[in-house]
Amino acid sequence: MDFTSWMFDIQRRTEVALDRLLPAANQPPTRLHEAMRYVALGGGKRVRPLLVQAAGSLVGAAPAQIDAVGCAVELIHVYSLVHDDLPCMDDDVLRRGKPTCHIEFDEATAMLVGDALQSLAFSVISDPVLGGDPCRKLEMVHLLAQAAGSRGMAGGQAIDLGATGQDLSVEELEFMHIHKTGALIRASVMLGALCANAIDDSLRMRLDLYAKRIGLLFQVVDDILDSAADTATLGKTAGKDAAQHKATYVSLLGMQRARSLADELLSDAKSALDGLGDSAARLVEIAEYIVERKF
Amino acid sequence: MDFTSWMFDIQRRTEVALDRLLPAANQPPTRLHEAMRYVALGGGKRVRPLLVQAAGSLVGAAPAQIDAVGCAVELIHVYSLVHDDLPCMDDDVLRRGKPTCHIEFDEATAMLVGDALQSLAFSVISDPVLGGDPCRKLEMVHLLAQAAGSRGMAGGQAIDLGATGQDLSVEELEFMHIHKTGALIRASVMLGALCANAIDDSLRMRLDLYAKRIGLLFQVVDDILDSAADTATLGKTAGKDAAQHKATYVSLLGMQRARSLADELLSDAKSALDGLGDSAARLVEIAEYIVERKF
Repeated sequence: MDFTSWMFDIQRRTEVALDRLLPAANQPPTRLHEAMRYVALGGGKRVRPLLVQAAGSLVGAAPAQIDAVGCAVELIHVYSLVHDDLPCMDDDVLRRGKPTCHIEFDEATAMLVGDALQSLAFSVISDPVLGGDPCRKLEMVHLLAQAAGSRGMAGGQAIDLGATGQDLSVEELEFMHIHKTGALIRASVMLGALCANAIDDSLRMRLDLYAKRIGLLFQVVDDILDSAADTATLGKTAGKDAAQHKATYVSLLGMQRARSLADELLSDAKSALDGLGDSAARLVEIAEYIVERKF
Repeated sequence: MDFTSWMFDIQRRTEVALDRLLPAANQPPTRLHEAMRYVALGGGKRVRPLLVQAAGSLVGAAPAQIDAVGCAVELIHVYSLVHDDLPCMDDDVLRRGKPTCHIEFDEATAMLVGDALQSLAFSVISDPVLGGDPCRKLEMVHLLAQAAGSRGMAGGQAIDLGATGQDLSVEELEFMHIHKTGALIRASVMLGALCANAIDDSLRMRLDLYAKRIGLLFQVVDDILDSAADTATLGKTAGKDAAQHKATYVSLLGMQRARSLADELLSDAKSALDGLGDSAARLVEIAEYIVERKF
Protein backbone atom coordinates (compact mmCIF):
# COMPACT_ATOMS: atom_id res chain seq x y z
CA MET A 1 0.00 0.00 0.00
CA ASP A 2 1.43 3.42 -0.87
CA PHE A 3 1.78 6.03 1.87
CA THR A 4 -1.21 8.15 0.88
CA SER A 5 -3.56 5.14 0.85
CA TRP A 6 -2.15 3.95 4.17
CA MET A 7 -2.59 7.43 5.67
CA PHE A 8 -6.20 7.69 4.46
CA ASP A 9 -6.84 4.24 5.83
CA ILE A 10 -5.53 5.17 9.31
CA GLN A 11 -7.38 8.49 9.24
CA ARG A 12 -10.60 6.64 8.43
CA ARG A 13 -9.94 4.03 11.14
CA THR A 14 -9.24 6.79 13.66
CA GLU A 15 -12.47 8.54 12.72
CA VAL A 16 -14.45 5.31 13.17
CA ALA A 17 -12.75 4.52 16.46
CA LEU A 18 -13.29 8.06 17.85
CA ASP A 19 -16.91 7.97 16.76
CA ARG A 20 -17.36 4.78 18.78
CA LEU A 21 -15.47 6.06 21.82
CA LEU A 22 -17.18 9.45 22.08
CA PRO A 23 -20.52 9.54 23.94
CA ALA A 24 -23.55 9.71 21.63
CA ALA A 25 -24.82 13.24 20.93
CA ASN A 26 -28.28 12.32 22.24
CA GLN A 27 -26.91 11.17 25.59
CA PRO A 28 -27.18 13.84 28.33
CA PRO A 29 -25.61 16.31 28.72
CA THR A 30 -26.42 16.51 25.01
CA ARG A 31 -24.93 19.92 24.28
CA LEU A 32 -21.58 18.90 25.80
CA HIS A 33 -21.52 15.60 23.93
CA GLU A 34 -22.53 17.27 20.68
CA ALA A 35 -19.69 19.77 21.14
CA MET A 36 -17.18 17.02 21.95
CA ARG A 37 -18.11 15.25 18.72
CA TYR A 38 -18.00 18.54 16.79
CA VAL A 39 -14.36 19.13 17.69
CA ALA A 40 -13.07 15.55 17.63
CA LEU A 41 -14.71 14.19 14.47
CA GLY A 42 -14.65 15.07 10.79
CA GLY A 43 -11.20 16.42 10.20
CA GLY A 44 -7.64 16.72 11.28
CA LYS A 45 -4.51 15.22 9.79
CA ARG A 46 -4.37 12.69 12.65
CA VAL A 47 -0.58 12.94 12.68
CA ARG A 48 -0.39 11.54 16.22
CA PRO A 49 -2.52 8.45 15.51
CA LEU A 50 -0.42 7.91 12.35
CA LEU A 51 2.71 7.88 14.52
CA VAL A 52 1.13 5.51 17.05
CA GLN A 53 0.15 3.19 14.19
CA ALA A 54 3.54 3.29 12.49
CA ALA A 55 5.43 2.65 15.74
CA GLY A 56 2.89 0.04 16.87
CA SER A 57 3.10 -1.87 13.58
CA LEU A 58 6.90 -1.73 13.72
CA VAL A 59 6.84 -3.71 16.98
CA GLY A 60 4.01 -6.02 15.85
CA ALA A 61 1.38 -4.80 18.34
CA ALA A 62 -2.32 -5.75 18.20
CA PRO A 63 -4.34 -3.42 15.91
CA ALA A 64 -7.21 -2.89 18.38
CA GLN A 65 -4.81 -1.69 21.02
CA ILE A 66 -2.98 0.58 18.59
CA ASP A 67 -6.29 2.13 17.49
CA ALA A 68 -7.34 2.88 21.06
CA VAL A 69 -3.99 4.36 22.02
CA GLY A 70 -4.01 6.48 18.86
CA CYS A 71 -7.42 7.81 19.84
CA ALA A 72 -6.27 8.61 23.38
CA VAL A 73 -3.39 10.73 22.09
CA GLU A 74 -5.62 12.42 19.53
CA LEU A 75 -8.17 13.28 22.24
CA ILE A 76 -5.44 15.02 24.25
CA HIS A 77 -4.38 16.89 21.12
CA VAL A 78 -7.93 17.96 20.27
CA TYR A 79 -8.62 19.12 23.84
CA SER A 80 -5.49 21.28 23.70
CA LEU A 81 -6.66 22.88 20.44
CA VAL A 82 -10.08 23.70 21.92
CA HIS A 83 -8.55 25.40 24.97
CA ASP A 84 -5.84 27.06 22.89
CA ASP A 85 -8.46 28.69 20.65
CA LEU A 86 -10.32 30.32 23.58
CA PRO A 87 -10.35 34.12 23.86
CA CYS A 88 -8.08 34.08 26.93
CA MET A 89 -5.47 32.12 24.92
CA ASP A 90 -5.03 32.49 21.13
CA ASP A 91 -8.55 33.84 20.56
CA ASP A 92 -9.03 32.06 17.26
CA VAL A 93 -12.29 31.69 15.35
CA LEU A 94 -11.34 29.11 12.72
CA ARG A 95 -9.97 25.57 13.12
CA ARG A 96 -9.85 22.79 10.55
CA GLY A 97 -11.94 25.00 8.27
CA LYS A 98 -14.80 25.28 10.79
CA PRO A 99 -15.74 27.83 13.47
CA THR A 100 -13.85 27.04 16.69
CA CYS A 101 -15.76 25.40 19.55
CA HIS A 102 -16.42 28.56 21.57
CA ILE A 103 -17.73 30.28 18.43
CA GLU A 104 -20.01 27.41 17.40
CA PHE A 105 -21.12 26.76 21.01
CA ASP A 106 -19.93 29.07 23.80
CA GLU A 107 -16.86 29.63 25.96
CA ALA A 108 -18.02 27.66 28.99
CA THR A 109 -18.95 24.68 26.81
CA ALA A 110 -15.58 24.86 25.03
CA MET A 111 -13.80 24.78 28.36
CA LEU A 112 -15.80 21.76 29.55
CA VAL A 113 -15.30 20.04 26.17
CA GLY A 114 -11.55 20.28 26.62
CA ASP A 115 -11.75 19.10 30.23
CA ALA A 116 -13.96 16.14 29.33
CA LEU A 117 -11.84 15.14 26.32
CA GLN A 118 -8.79 14.97 28.55
CA SER A 119 -10.65 12.68 30.98
CA LEU A 120 -11.88 10.58 28.06
CA ALA A 121 -8.32 10.08 26.81
CA PHE A 122 -7.34 8.54 30.15
CA SER A 123 -10.53 6.52 30.25
CA VAL A 124 -9.80 5.08 26.79
CA ILE A 125 -6.18 4.18 27.49
CA SER A 126 -7.05 2.50 30.83
CA ASP A 127 -10.13 0.64 29.57
CA PRO A 128 -9.95 -2.95 30.86
CA VAL A 129 -11.63 -4.30 27.69
CA LEU A 130 -8.47 -3.45 25.76
CA GLY A 131 -6.47 -6.25 27.35
CA GLY A 132 -2.68 -6.37 27.16
CA ASP A 133 -0.10 -6.41 29.94
CA PRO A 134 -1.46 -4.20 32.79
CA CYS A 135 2.04 -3.06 33.83
CA ARG A 136 2.65 -1.86 30.32
CA LYS A 137 -0.75 -0.19 30.19
CA LEU A 138 -0.07 1.63 33.43
CA GLU A 139 3.26 2.81 32.03
CA MET A 140 1.35 4.17 29.04
CA VAL A 141 -1.10 6.09 31.25
CA HIS A 142 1.83 7.60 33.14
CA LEU A 143 3.68 8.53 29.95
CA LEU A 144 0.59 10.19 28.45
CA ALA A 145 -0.12 12.09 31.68
CA GLN A 146 3.45 13.38 31.83
CA ALA A 147 3.42 14.39 28.17
CA ALA A 148 0.15 16.29 28.63
CA GLY A 149 0.98 18.01 31.91
CA SER A 150 2.88 21.01 33.21
CA ARG A 151 6.24 19.55 32.26
CA GLY A 152 4.90 18.64 28.82
CA MET A 153 2.25 20.11 26.57
CA ALA A 154 0.39 22.34 29.09
CA GLY A 155 3.76 23.62 30.28
CA GLY A 156 4.70 24.44 26.69
CA GLN A 157 1.54 26.48 26.32
CA ALA A 158 2.37 28.37 29.50
CA ILE A 159 5.85 29.14 28.15
CA ASP A 160 4.28 30.26 24.86
CA LEU A 161 1.93 32.54 26.81
CA GLY A 162 4.80 34.14 28.68
CA ALA A 163 6.79 34.54 25.47
CA THR A 164 4.24 36.55 23.46
CA GLY A 165 5.68 39.97 22.73
CA GLN A 166 9.08 38.89 24.10
CA ASP A 167 12.32 38.55 22.16
CA LEU A 168 13.20 34.86 22.24
CA SER A 169 16.44 33.22 21.21
CA VAL A 170 16.33 30.15 18.96
CA GLU A 171 17.21 28.08 22.04
CA GLU A 172 14.27 29.50 24.00
CA LEU A 173 11.96 28.92 21.06
CA GLU A 174 13.16 25.33 20.85
CA PHE A 175 12.63 24.82 24.60
CA MET A 176 9.04 26.01 24.19
CA HIS A 177 8.29 23.74 21.25
CA ILE A 178 9.92 20.69 22.81
CA HIS A 179 7.17 21.04 25.39
CA LYS A 180 4.23 22.51 23.49
CA THR A 181 4.21 20.21 20.46
CA GLY A 182 7.18 17.92 20.96
CA ALA A 183 6.07 16.18 24.14
CA LEU A 184 2.89 14.72 22.65
CA ILE A 185 4.52 13.82 19.31
CA ARG A 186 7.25 12.01 21.24
CA ALA A 187 4.66 10.30 23.43
CA SER A 188 2.78 9.13 20.30
CA VAL A 189 5.79 7.21 19.04
CA MET A 190 6.65 5.74 22.44
CA LEU A 191 3.02 4.80 23.15
CA GLY A 192 2.83 2.99 19.82
CA ALA A 193 5.98 1.07 20.68
CA LEU A 194 4.69 0.28 24.19
CA CYS A 195 1.71 -1.51 22.61
CA ALA A 196 4.14 -4.41 22.12
CA ASN A 197 4.81 -6.75 25.00
CA ALA A 198 8.49 -5.94 25.06
CA ILE A 199 10.88 -3.63 23.23
CA ASP A 200 14.63 -3.50 23.73
CA ASP A 201 16.46 -0.42 24.94
CA SER A 202 18.27 0.18 21.68
CA LEU A 203 15.01 0.34 19.71
CA ARG A 204 13.49 2.57 22.40
CA MET A 205 16.40 5.00 22.08
CA ARG A 206 16.22 5.07 18.29
CA LEU A 207 12.49 5.73 18.31
CA ASP A 208 12.86 8.40 20.95
CA LEU A 209 15.54 10.21 18.93
CA TYR A 210 13.37 9.98 15.81
CA ALA A 211 10.38 11.31 17.77
CA LYS A 212 12.29 14.26 19.20
CA ARG A 213 13.49 15.29 15.74
CA ILE A 214 10.10 15.09 14.06
CA GLY A 215 8.51 16.90 17.01
CA LEU A 216 10.67 19.93 16.26
CA LEU A 217 10.38 19.36 12.51
CA PHE A 218 6.63 19.57 12.83
CA GLN A 219 6.84 22.98 14.47
CA VAL A 220 9.43 24.40 12.08
CA VAL A 221 7.21 23.38 9.15
CA ASP A 222 4.18 24.83 10.94
CA ASP A 223 5.95 28.17 11.24
CA ILE A 224 6.94 28.05 7.57
CA LEU A 225 3.36 27.27 6.56
CA ASP A 226 1.87 29.93 8.83
CA SER A 227 4.17 32.49 7.28
CA ALA A 228 3.68 31.36 3.66
CA ALA A 229 0.13 30.04 3.32
CA ASP A 230 -3.19 31.83 3.23
CA THR A 231 -6.14 31.13 5.53
CA ALA A 232 -8.19 29.13 3.01
CA THR A 233 -5.33 26.69 2.31
CA LEU A 234 -4.41 26.34 5.97
CA GLY A 235 -7.93 25.80 7.33
CA LYS A 236 -7.03 28.02 10.27
CA THR A 237 -6.18 31.70 10.53
CA ALA A 238 -2.90 32.31 8.71
CA GLY A 239 -0.25 34.89 9.57
CA LYS A 240 -1.39 35.00 13.21
CA ASP A 241 2.09 34.50 14.62
CA ALA A 242 3.40 37.64 12.91
CA ALA A 243 0.24 39.58 13.80
CA GLN A 244 0.66 38.62 17.48
CA HIS A 245 4.41 39.34 17.37
CA LYS A 246 5.16 35.76 18.31
CA ALA A 247 8.67 34.49 17.76
CA THR A 248 8.75 31.74 15.12
CA TYR A 249 11.54 29.89 13.35
CA VAL A 250 10.84 32.04 10.31
CA SER A 251 10.94 35.32 12.24
CA LEU A 252 14.17 34.34 14.00
CA LEU A 253 16.02 32.53 11.22
CA GLY A 254 14.41 33.83 8.04
CA MET A 255 12.56 31.58 5.59
CA GLN A 256 15.69 30.20 3.92
CA ARG A 257 17.40 29.04 7.11
CA ALA A 258 14.14 27.75 8.53
CA ARG A 259 13.83 25.52 5.47
CA SER A 260 17.42 24.32 5.89
CA LEU A 261 16.70 23.50 9.54
CA ALA A 262 13.68 21.45 8.42
CA ASP A 263 15.89 19.52 5.97
CA GLU A 264 18.43 18.87 8.69
CA LEU A 265 15.83 17.64 11.20
CA LEU A 266 14.32 15.35 8.54
CA SER A 267 17.72 13.89 7.78
CA ASP A 268 18.43 13.33 11.51
CA ALA A 269 15.04 11.68 12.00
CA LYS A 270 15.72 9.26 9.15
CA SER A 271 19.23 8.49 10.42
CA ALA A 272 17.81 7.52 13.81
CA LEU A 273 15.91 4.71 12.06
CA ASP A 274 18.94 3.45 10.07
CA GLY A 275 19.25 -0.30 10.16
CA LEU A 276 15.61 -0.96 11.05
CA GLY A 277 14.86 -1.70 7.40
CA ASP A 278 11.40 -2.01 5.91
CA SER A 279 9.61 -2.16 9.25
CA ALA A 280 10.42 1.53 9.80
CA ALA A 281 9.31 2.61 6.31
CA ARG A 282 6.06 4.23 7.54
CA LEU A 283 7.90 6.30 10.14
CA VAL A 284 10.25 7.57 7.42
CA GLU A 285 7.29 8.37 5.20
CA ILE A 286 5.54 10.28 8.00
CA ALA A 287 8.65 12.41 8.51
CA GLU A 288 8.73 13.17 4.78
CA TYR A 289 5.02 13.89 4.79
CA ILE A 290 5.43 16.42 7.60
CA VAL A 291 7.88 18.37 5.45
CA GLU A 292 5.93 18.10 2.21
CA ARG A 293 2.42 18.74 3.48
CA LYS A 294 0.78 21.69 1.90
CA PHE A 295 -2.10 21.91 4.36
CA MET B 1 -7.88 9.37 68.14
CA ASP B 2 -10.99 11.57 68.07
CA PHE B 3 -12.44 12.60 64.72
CA THR B 4 -11.17 16.16 64.74
CA SER B 5 -7.59 15.10 65.47
CA TRP B 6 -7.81 12.38 62.81
CA MET B 7 -9.19 14.88 60.29
CA PHE B 8 -6.44 17.41 61.02
CA ASP B 9 -3.89 14.63 60.71
CA ILE B 10 -5.17 13.58 57.27
CA GLN B 11 -5.43 17.20 56.14
CA ARG B 12 -1.82 17.73 57.17
CA ARG B 13 -0.70 14.50 55.46
CA THR B 14 -2.55 15.50 52.29
CA GLU B 15 -0.88 18.90 52.34
CA VAL B 16 2.56 17.32 52.73
CA ALA B 17 1.88 14.75 50.00
CA LEU B 18 0.54 17.38 47.58
CA ASP B 19 3.52 19.62 48.29
CA ARG B 20 5.80 16.74 47.32
CA LEU B 21 3.81 15.78 44.20
CA LEU B 22 3.42 19.28 42.77
CA PRO B 23 6.33 20.58 40.68
CA ALA B 24 8.56 23.07 42.52
CA ALA B 25 7.66 26.73 41.97
CA ASN B 26 11.17 27.46 40.70
CA GLN B 27 10.96 24.79 38.00
CA PRO B 28 9.98 26.17 34.58
CA PRO B 29 7.38 27.13 33.59
CA THR B 30 7.61 28.88 36.95
CA ARG B 31 4.44 30.98 36.72
CA LEU B 32 2.34 27.91 35.93
CA HIS B 33 3.90 25.87 38.72
CA GLU B 34 3.54 28.74 41.18
CA ALA B 35 -0.15 29.01 40.26
CA MET B 36 -0.69 25.24 40.57
CA ARG B 37 0.74 25.37 44.08
CA TYR B 38 -1.30 28.47 44.91
CA VAL B 39 -4.58 26.69 44.22
CA ALA B 40 -3.72 23.21 45.49
CA LEU B 41 -1.91 24.01 48.74
CA GLY B 42 -2.76 25.81 51.96
CA GLY B 43 -6.42 25.18 52.41
CA GLY B 44 -9.47 23.16 51.65
CA LYS B 45 -11.41 20.76 53.82
CA ARG B 46 -9.92 17.83 51.88
CA VAL B 47 -13.21 15.94 52.14
CA ARG B 48 -12.28 13.65 49.24
CA PRO B 49 -8.90 12.60 50.66
CA LEU B 50 -10.65 12.02 54.01
CA LEU B 51 -13.04 9.64 52.25
CA VAL B 52 -10.20 7.86 50.44
CA GLN B 53 -8.40 7.46 53.77
CA ALA B 54 -11.43 6.23 55.67
CA ALA B 55 -12.37 3.69 52.96
CA GLY B 56 -8.73 2.67 52.44
CA SER B 57 -8.18 2.09 56.17
CA LEU B 58 -11.42 0.08 56.36
CA VAL B 59 -9.99 -2.43 53.87
CA GLY B 60 -6.48 -2.37 55.38
CA ALA B 61 -4.72 -0.75 52.41
CA ALA B 62 -1.12 0.54 52.48
CA PRO B 63 -0.90 4.16 53.77
CA ALA B 64 1.45 5.36 51.00
CA GLN B 65 -0.97 4.21 48.34
CA ILE B 66 -3.95 5.75 50.12
CA ASP B 67 -2.13 9.08 50.37
CA ALA B 68 -1.32 9.13 46.66
CA VAL B 69 -4.84 8.18 45.61
CA GLY B 70 -6.28 10.83 47.95
CA CYS B 71 -4.04 13.42 46.30
CA ALA B 72 -5.11 12.32 42.81
CA VAL B 73 -8.79 12.82 43.65
CA GLU B 74 -8.08 16.14 45.34
CA LEU B 75 -6.15 17.37 42.28
CA ILE B 76 -9.18 16.63 40.09
CA HIS B 77 -11.39 18.49 42.58
CA VAL B 78 -9.07 21.50 42.73
CA TYR B 79 -8.79 21.67 38.93
CA SER B 80 -12.59 21.73 38.70
CA LEU B 81 -12.79 24.62 41.17
CA VAL B 82 -10.24 26.65 39.22
CA HIS B 83 -12.14 26.22 35.95
CA ASP B 84 -15.51 26.69 37.65
CA ASP B 85 -14.40 30.06 39.03
CA LEU B 86 -13.46 31.45 35.58
CA PRO B 87 -15.48 34.36 34.15
CA CYS B 88 -17.07 32.16 31.46
CA MET B 89 -18.38 29.83 34.21
CA ASP B 90 -19.27 31.06 37.71
CA ASP B 91 -17.13 34.20 37.51
CA ASP B 92 -16.07 34.06 41.14
CA VAL B 93 -13.32 36.12 42.76
CA LEU B 94 -12.96 34.40 46.13
CA ARG B 95 -12.16 30.78 46.97
CA ARG B 96 -10.97 29.32 50.25
CA GLY B 97 -10.65 32.89 51.54
CA LYS B 98 -8.17 33.87 48.82
CA PRO B 99 -8.51 35.55 45.41
CA THR B 100 -9.36 32.92 42.77
CA CYS B 101 -6.63 31.78 40.40
CA HIS B 102 -7.59 33.98 37.46
CA ILE B 103 -7.72 37.02 39.76
CA GLU B 104 -4.37 36.31 41.42
CA PHE B 105 -2.75 35.29 38.11
CA ASP B 106 -4.73 35.58 34.85
CA GLU B 107 -7.39 33.70 32.92
CA ALA B 108 -5.07 31.86 30.56
CA THR B 109 -2.89 30.70 33.44
CA ALA B 110 -5.97 29.57 35.38
CA MET B 111 -7.11 27.50 32.42
CA LEU B 112 -3.69 25.87 32.04
CA VAL B 113 -3.50 25.30 35.82
CA GLY B 114 -6.73 23.31 35.65
CA ASP B 115 -5.57 21.38 32.60
CA ALA B 116 -2.21 20.54 34.14
CA LEU B 117 -3.72 19.55 37.50
CA GLN B 118 -5.96 17.06 35.73
CA SER B 119 -2.94 15.53 33.96
CA LEU B 120 -1.05 15.46 37.25
CA ALA B 121 -3.88 13.52 38.92
CA PHE B 122 -3.55 10.75 36.32
CA SER B 123 0.22 10.88 36.54
CA VAL B 124 0.07 10.42 40.33
CA ILE B 125 -2.39 7.54 40.28
CA SER B 126 -0.46 5.65 37.57
CA ASP B 127 3.00 6.26 39.03
CA PRO B 128 4.92 2.96 38.93
CA VAL B 129 6.75 3.79 42.18
CA LEU B 130 3.48 3.33 44.04
CA GLY B 131 3.47 -0.43 43.59
CA GLY B 132 0.34 -2.50 44.17
CA ASP B 133 -1.53 -4.79 41.79
CA PRO B 134 -1.30 -3.22 38.29
CA CYS B 135 -4.74 -4.53 37.27
CA ARG B 136 -6.26 -2.83 40.30
CA LYS B 137 -4.31 0.35 39.57
CA LEU B 138 -5.58 0.40 36.00
CA GLU B 139 -9.13 -0.04 37.28
CA MET B 140 -8.54 2.98 39.52
CA VAL B 141 -7.33 5.12 36.60
CA HIS B 142 -10.41 4.14 34.64
CA LEU B 143 -12.76 4.87 37.54
CA LEU B 144 -11.23 8.30 38.17
CA ALA B 145 -11.36 9.16 34.45
CA GLN B 146 -15.02 8.19 34.25
CA ALA B 147 -15.89 10.14 37.40
CA ALA B 148 -14.15 13.24 36.08
CA GLY B 149 -15.46 13.12 32.51
CA SER B 150 -18.55 14.04 30.54
CA ARG B 151 -20.66 11.37 32.22
CA GLY B 152 -19.37 12.46 35.61
CA MET B 153 -18.14 15.74 37.05
CA ALA B 154 -17.57 17.70 33.81
CA GLY B 155 -20.98 16.53 32.60
CA GLY B 156 -22.55 17.77 35.82
CA GLN B 157 -21.03 21.19 35.25
CA ALA B 158 -22.45 21.23 31.74
CA ILE B 159 -25.90 20.39 33.13
CA ASP B 160 -25.48 23.13 35.73
CA LEU B 161 -24.58 25.58 32.97
CA GLY B 162 -27.68 24.72 30.98
CA ALA B 163 -29.85 24.96 34.08
CA THR B 164 -28.98 28.50 35.15
CA GLY B 165 -32.09 30.64 34.92
CA GLN B 166 -34.25 27.55 34.26
CA ASP B 167 -36.92 26.14 36.52
CA LEU B 168 -35.66 22.75 37.66
CA SER B 169 -37.58 20.02 39.43
CA VAL B 170 -36.05 18.37 42.50
CA GLU B 171 -35.37 15.31 40.30
CA GLU B 172 -33.50 17.41 37.72
CA LEU B 173 -31.53 19.13 40.47
CA GLU B 174 -30.61 15.72 41.89
CA PHE B 175 -29.55 14.44 38.45
CA MET B 176 -27.24 17.44 38.13
CA HIS B 177 -25.66 16.99 41.54
CA ILE B 178 -25.22 13.23 41.15
CA HIS B 179 -22.87 14.18 38.33
CA LYS B 180 -21.41 17.51 39.40
CA THR B 181 -20.41 16.66 42.98
CA GLY B 182 -21.61 13.09 43.49
CA ALA B 183 -19.44 11.35 40.90
CA LEU B 184 -16.15 12.39 42.47
CA ILE B 185 -17.34 11.83 46.06
CA ARG B 186 -18.44 8.34 45.06
CA ALA B 187 -15.15 7.73 43.25
CA SER B 188 -13.24 8.80 46.40
CA VAL B 189 -14.84 6.05 48.48
CA MET B 190 -14.44 3.39 45.78
CA LEU B 191 -10.84 4.39 45.06
CA GLY B 192 -10.01 4.11 48.76
CA ALA B 193 -11.53 0.64 48.82
CA LEU B 194 -9.68 -0.37 45.63
CA CYS B 195 -6.37 0.34 47.38
CA ALA B 196 -6.87 -3.10 48.96
CA ASN B 197 -5.88 -6.18 47.01
CA ALA B 198 -9.40 -7.55 47.05
CA ILE B 199 -12.82 -6.47 48.30
CA ASP B 200 -15.97 -8.55 48.12
CA ASP B 201 -19.05 -7.48 46.20
CA SER B 202 -21.21 -6.99 49.27
CA LEU B 203 -18.77 -4.51 50.80
CA ARG B 204 -18.43 -2.78 47.46
CA MET B 205 -22.22 -2.32 47.26
CA ARG B 206 -22.47 -1.00 50.82
CA LEU B 207 -19.70 1.50 50.24
CA ASP B 208 -21.20 2.58 46.96
CA LEU B 209 -24.59 3.18 48.56
CA TYR B 210 -22.96 5.14 51.38
CA ALA B 211 -21.00 7.18 48.84
CA LYS B 212 -24.06 8.02 46.76
CA ARG B 213 -25.93 9.25 49.83
CA ILE B 214 -23.15 11.44 51.17
CA GLY B 215 -22.55 12.80 47.66
CA LEU B 216 -26.04 14.25 47.66
CA LEU B 217 -25.84 15.12 51.34
CA PHE B 218 -22.79 17.19 50.64
CA GLN B 219 -24.67 19.24 48.05
CA VAL B 220 -27.81 19.70 50.13
CA VAL B 221 -25.68 21.01 53.00
CA ASP B 222 -23.75 23.22 50.57
CA ASP B 223 -27.01 24.80 49.44
CA ILE B 224 -28.11 25.29 53.05
CA LEU B 225 -24.79 26.92 53.90
CA ASP B 226 -24.79 29.12 50.79
CA SER B 227 -28.21 30.36 51.71
CA ALA B 228 -27.54 30.86 55.42
CA ALA B 229 -23.90 31.86 55.81
CA ASP B 230 -22.09 35.07 55.04
CA THR B 231 -19.04 35.41 52.82
CA ALA B 232 -16.49 35.72 55.62
CA THR B 233 -17.62 32.49 57.30
CA LEU B 234 -17.86 30.59 54.02
CA GLY B 235 -14.48 31.63 52.56
CA LYS B 236 -16.18 31.98 49.18
CA THR B 237 -18.82 34.35 47.89
CA ALA B 238 -22.07 33.61 49.75
CA GLY B 239 -25.58 33.92 48.37
CA LYS B 240 -24.35 33.50 44.79
CA ASP B 241 -26.88 30.82 43.91
CA ALA B 242 -29.81 33.07 44.69
CA ALA B 243 -28.15 36.02 42.96
CA GLN B 244 -27.66 33.91 39.80
CA HIS B 245 -31.19 32.48 40.05
CA LYS B 246 -29.81 28.99 40.34
CA ALA B 247 -32.09 26.27 41.58
CA THR B 248 -30.94 24.90 44.95
CA TYR B 249 -32.41 22.47 47.45
CA VAL B 250 -33.28 25.47 49.60
CA SER B 251 -34.96 27.39 46.78
CA LEU B 252 -36.97 24.32 45.71
CA LEU B 253 -37.78 22.77 49.10
CA GLY B 254 -37.42 25.66 51.52
CA MET B 255 -34.90 25.66 54.38
CA GLN B 256 -36.91 23.39 56.67
CA ARG B 257 -37.44 20.58 54.18
CA ALA B 258 -33.88 20.89 52.90
CA ARG B 259 -32.71 20.27 56.46
CA SER B 260 -35.01 17.24 56.76
CA LEU B 261 -33.63 15.87 53.49
CA ALA B 262 -30.12 16.25 54.88
CA ASP B 263 -31.13 14.30 58.02
CA GLU B 264 -32.65 11.56 55.88
CA LEU B 265 -29.59 11.23 53.65
CA LEU B 266 -27.34 11.08 56.71
CA SER B 267 -29.46 8.33 58.19
CA ASP B 268 -29.40 6.35 54.90
CA ALA B 269 -25.64 6.73 54.62
CA LYS B 270 -25.16 5.36 58.13
CA SER B 271 -27.56 2.46 57.49
CA ALA B 272 -25.54 1.42 54.46
CA LEU B 273 -22.59 0.79 56.78
CA ASP B 274 -24.61 -1.22 59.34
CA GLY B 275 -22.83 -4.34 60.45
CA LEU B 276 -19.35 -3.17 59.46
CA GLY B 277 -18.68 -2.19 63.06
CA ASP B 278 -15.74 -0.13 64.25
CA SER B 279 -13.86 -0.33 60.96
CA ALA B 280 -16.48 1.96 59.39
CA ALA B 281 -16.46 4.48 62.25
CA ARG B 282 -14.52 7.12 60.32
CA LEU B 283 -16.92 6.94 57.38
CA VAL B 284 -19.83 7.51 59.78
CA GLU B 285 -18.00 10.42 61.37
CA ILE B 286 -17.31 12.00 57.96
CA ALA B 287 -21.01 11.84 57.12
CA GLU B 288 -21.83 13.54 60.43
CA TYR B 289 -19.12 16.09 59.86
CA ILE B 290 -20.57 17.00 56.45
CA VAL B 291 -23.87 17.87 58.12
CA GLU B 292 -22.38 19.70 61.06
CA ARG B 293 -19.66 21.70 59.30
CA LYS B 294 -20.03 25.37 59.80
CA PHE B 295 -17.57 26.34 57.08
